[in-house]
Amino acid sequence: MKENNNSAYENMSPAKVRSLIREGKITWQTSGMCRGFAQANLVILPKEQAYDFLLFAQRNPTSCPLLEVSDAGSRTLKYIAKDADIATDIPKYRLWENGELSGEYTDVERFWRDDLVCFLIGCSFSFEAELISSQIPVRHIEQGRNVPMYNTSIPCVSAGIFKGNMVVSMRPMTEREAIAATAITAAMPRVHGKPVHFGDPSKIGIKDIAAPDYGDSVTIKDGEIPVFWPCGVTPQAALMAAKPPFAITHAPGHMFITDILNSSLKN
Amino acid sequence: MKENNNSAYENMSPAKVRSLIREGKITWQTSGMCRGFAQANLVILPKEQAYDFLLFAQRNPTSCPLLEVSDAGSRTLKYIAKDADIATDIPKYRLWENGELSGEYTDVERFWRDDLVCFLIGCSFSFEAELISSQIPVRHIEQGRNVPMYNTSIPCVSAGIFKGNMVVSMRPMTEREAIAATAITAAMPRVHGKPVHFGDPSKIGIKDIAAPDYGDSVTIKDGEIPVFWPCGVTPQAALMAAKPPFAITHAPGHMFITDILNSSLKN
Repeated sequence: MKENNNSAYENMSPAKVRSLIREGKITWQTSGMCRGFAQANLVILPKEQAYDFLLFAQRNPTSCPLLEVSDAGSRTLKYIAKDADIATDIPKYRLWENGELSGEYTDVERFWRDDLVCFLIGCSFSFEAELISSQIPVRHIEQGRNVPMYNTSIPCVSAGIFKGNMVVSMRPMTEREAIAATAITAAMPRVHGKPVHFGDPSKIGIKDIAAPDYGDSVTIKDGEIPVFWPCGVTPQAALMAAKPPFAITHAPGHMFITDILNSSLKN
Repeated sequence: MKENNNSAYENMSPAKVRSLIREGKITWQTSGMCRGFAQANLVILPKEQAYDFLLFAQRNPTSCPLLEVSDAGSRTLKYIAKDADIATDIPKYRLWENGELSGEYTDVERFWRDDLVCFLIGCSFSFEAELISSQIPVRHIEQGRNVPMYNTSIPCVSAGIFKGNMVVSMRPMTEREAIAATAITAAMPRVHGKPVHFGDPSKIGIKDIAAPDYGDSVTIKDGEIPVFWPCGVTPQAALMAAKPPFAITHAPGHMFITDILNSSLKN
């Protein structure tokens, strides 16, 4: 079974889906599961690098909006999910050693250490649900693709070992839709907030809008402009560039499903 | 010269007022200086305690909204003020050792260490300016007093050595004004955001509204209700309770004047 069939999990509770993931019965992407509930990006770092990463997130809140930071060594969360085990409840993890991908795993219990800190980071899935409910098109969903993402020339504020430029996601829409989407997402700062740019991609250092650096290209129709939002790949890119000795992340699209509603992430 | 005469500094630039403070020519409270510009609370901690404090702020963003966190050892800021020296540009500092106040100083150069991290925290002065410009009464300003503040039964989310209950500030107003004030402050999450409670004080553990735990009592007129906001004294109270070996804060009312406009703190 693949993510195309996630409609079977659309109305299931987050706790139930997490238990299926924990039992190894769901190993694919989580898009579309547990409708209405926020999904989160994951970064796990040893305490030694956690201060710099926490500071990087504080300094770059639009691209790195923290939903929860665990206590060092704890595999449970206190606020965004009950009875979750962060070492087992994501369908696919990536292990990184010195900035190199060293493996993908369906759980990371064997790698657990008492000094690990988990960062759960807001995700654009949350605001896309709000856009769709306002009848604003989300092209990559319409086309069954991953969202197009681009490296930009917009510098992040560095913090210790973490630095780099912002990565953005792009959704094409009309000017009228862009104005509505700006108002909707401005009210959701914990899931990236308002756009960082619209229109001419070259103004933020994007050379070819048809060739995203991550994800898939999507159709921009006549009369539409590209609208760009800060993207949760930004902290992952900063993490890879910093090459810490040890890190764990989720695999792209294989998110942590929280118990909090997207609607609770509004101001 | 005392704060009652701060109208002389109302239209001066933040850089100019900071230079006067640095030269020892202003040693009193900063309320009313540099109209339109945000003022900030200060907490300075050694790196050893800084991670817990940063995590405490992340977990309690309404009472501890961070405007900037310095690099360890740096006396300058990068974002909210240019050419500032954090060790000299506040009129009065407090030095704390093991949770005890050990002295007040007009500069803290002699205590500077390479491991010190500065936390600049948003302040309700910023949203009060917005309330006043919307003709919503701010009673303690009308009465020439300090804002009344109260310990509550609302628990903060603890982080390492830092824990405690929320401290709130209170402004009395009519229901209609409270609704407008809620909308205005909800759009300013970096300076405490929307109220945490209104009406019956006992619901948040306040026994006597006429006897604030900090600041001064103010008149509540017939037809008015008390409205409560998360207060920047919360992290200071958590700091004192944690009794770290070494800490520096501003003295109450003696704030750091930033180069950023209050209006820039809106969503």
